[in-house]
Amino acid sequence: MAEANGKAVDLKTNFLQIYSRLKSDLLDDPAFSFTEDSRQWIDRMLDYNVPGGKLNRGISVVDSCEILKEGQLSDDEFFCAGVLGWCVEWLQAYFLVLDDIMDNSHTRRGQPCWFRLPKVGIIAANDGIILRNHTPRILNRHFRDKTYYVHLLDLFNEVEFQTASGQMLDLITTHEGEKDLSKYKMPVYNRIVQYKTAYYSFYLPVACALLMAGETLDNYVDAKRVLVEMGTYFQVQDDYLDCFGVPEFIGKIGTDIEDFKCSWLVVKALEIADENQLKILEENYGKSDPACVTKVKSLYNDLNLRAIFSEYERTSYEQLISAIEAQPSKQVQEVLKSFLHKIYKRQK
Amino acid sequence: MAEANGKAVDLKTNFLQIYSRLKSDLLDDPAFSFTEDSRQWIDRMLDYNVPGGKLNRGISVVDSCEILKEGQLSDDEFFCAGVLGWCVEWLQAYFLVLDDIMDNSHTRRGQPCWFRLPKVGIIAANDGIILRNHTPRILNRHFRDKTYYVHLLDLFNEVEFQTASGQMLDLITTHEGEKDLSKYKMPVYNRIVQYKTAYYSFYLPVACALLMAGETLDNYVDAKRVLVEMGTYFQVQDDYLDCFGVPEFIGKIGTDIEDFKCSWLVVKALEIADENQLKILEENYGKSDPACVTKVKSLYNDLNLRAIFSEYERTSYEQLISAIEAQPSKQVQEVLKSFLHKIYKRQK
Ligand SMILES: [Mg+2]
Ligand SMILES: [Mg+2]
Ligand SMILES: [Mg+2]
Ligand SMILES: [Mg+2]
Ligand SMILES: [Mg+2]
Ligand SMILES: [Mg+2]
Repeated sequence: MAEANGKAVDLKTNFLQIYSRLKSDLLDDPAFSFTEDSRQWIDRMLDYNVPGGKLNRGISVVDSCEILKEGQLSDDEFFCAGVLGWCVEWLQAYFLVLDDIMDNSHTRRGQPCWFRLPKVGIIAANDGIILRNHTPRILNRHFRDKTYYVHLLDLFNEVEFQTASGQMLDLITTHEGEKDLSKYKMPVYNRIVQYKTAYYSFYLPVACALLMAGETLDNYVDAKRVLVEMGTYFQVQDDYLDCFGVPEFIGKIGTDIEDFKCSWLVVKALEIADENQLKILEENYGKSDPACVTKVKSLYNDLNLRAIFSEYERTSYEQLISAIEAQPSKQVQEVLKSFLHKIYKRQK
Repeated sequence: MAEANGKAVDLKTNFLQIYSRLKSDLLDDPAFSFTEDSRQWIDRMLDYNVPGGKLNRGISVVDSCEILKEGQLSDDEFFCAGVLGWCVEWLQAYFLVLDDIMDNSHTRRGQPCWFRLPKVGIIAANDGIILRNHTPRILNRHFRDKTYYVHLLDLFNEVEFQTASGQMLDLITTHEGEKDLSKYKMPVYNRIVQYKTAYYSFYLPVACALLMAGETLDNYVDAKRVLVEMGTYFQVQDDYLDCFGVPEFIGKIGTDIEDFKCSWLVVKALEIADENQLKILEENYGKSDPACVTKVKSLYNDLNLRAIFSEYERTSYEQLISAIEAQPSKQVQEVLKSFLHKIYKRQK
């Protein structure tokens, strides 16, 4: 909870107010002379794609800032942290809009993917680009006079490059040519997840908070390593919940099996399956026929993947905790632990 | 011509050598752990999309630097100018790869569009993103210690934002809904061209050279205005040559009429056509049937569009020259004139 004007106000509400401010700034950007049509287009595009997620990444910038400051943020500090949080959300929106086009997906956050709207179609590709361009516009407007402005630009550029590179790995591993399970190995999986998800989802929010606190990121390579590990663990959970989670909790019905996804579950299954079981996977993985999905799920049960996941979760947690406790700064330890406890044993 | 090791060496050859150096840097970027497959993918993708154009934009950074310095560039200065020139070319490659997907085009620079290659397909969208990410990687590697580093980042971010915004205008004006010529008006045309083409093709190369020369861009808003005007004139030429140019000179057979493009020619024709002529346009513009194309071309002849273009070219030139001569700096005047004389009355 953040305090404003002496009253406790819901953090998420305050965070969402910053979104409205940023949106109206962008719709009046002097670098472009908007027409009525184009202003309306951007307005709708932003509302459809930016604020509708869980906002965990964005809000964790604010949380991390509070911990690093060891106390409550001033209104100005809250605003700055919130703006950086929204930059993370904007970056994610950009990647999701384009990822849905490339994956030919149908739904996202419980509604049709942006490019599926009849009026939008392939214009969505340029909208993704526009979303990408908004981050530096926001940073320039609100941070250009800060000493850490150039470090923020470098940070967002580096993390975006890593995310796009992870996406490339994913695309050339899992899209190229015919369906081929032989490419789905644990080191391949880990590398894709690290680059495609972990840097922007876990490292970036904390790095934003560290820069705001006046820190030099080169001094936090160990914390970065921990956050990237945590991001990997988070994605393994995501893959687990896609199959074994409760749809009412996770808010969707998983389709990783149908979609031939390079999921932690199938990679693990391929590691431990015998010859017959391998054949079952080859014949049934990546098919939309419900009978095939059922066969894959019952194979996952035969292979005890629930128990193997629980064991993975337990050892990951232990390793993360000891890596966190080896960090020299107590506040950084607290930032990392707070992050870990948000996701440990999550059901959604 | 640039001199190296005391011998005259062809500028373009030297410029292309810098490309090879930049490519190998990118293939060893420590921010990503490349696999053999992904390194090869990027290698091919770059060779296919980055160096195959006329390189006018990139080389004009080097030319502008030489003029601003009033003398020959040192090897180091040549290298820096060349690197910035390649950043402009990379930015263009990024936009072209994505534009071809959005326009569903077939060929580019005399070869199939990148996304048309069977192995590539929609992965091309992410390759566009990777190309976009390369610019800040290159700038960070070669310019991070320069005092103007942050201004380079701001410049590329602003110009990219303007280009993407111009692309949006183009897409929502010319792609949305049914074919509708009533939207094709001169102010609409000018706005699209200014943002989509002029900033990155004309302003950006000169702005790079000004930053390298230690200048503050805020002091050159008049020069910027001239360059944006010149970029508009350049696009009008492009549209003219698409219909009236000699295919052997321009290196392709124009298809703007078939593609229902918002070309200067059709906008002008719509301005001056009588009711019957309007009907001819409505019935024949944007159709691939050669008989329809012939009807549009003969209407353009009836309307004297060649002569109207010549008159436009003459007055544009005069206005540009007097705007150039009003610039306070002689070197800036020379940079702008050299740019103008590269394009005035061009046949290709
Ligand atoms: Mg996807
Ligand atoms: Mg994907
Ligand atoms: Mg998932
Ligand atoms: Mg095009
Ligand atoms: Mg286009
Ligand atoms: Mg053209």
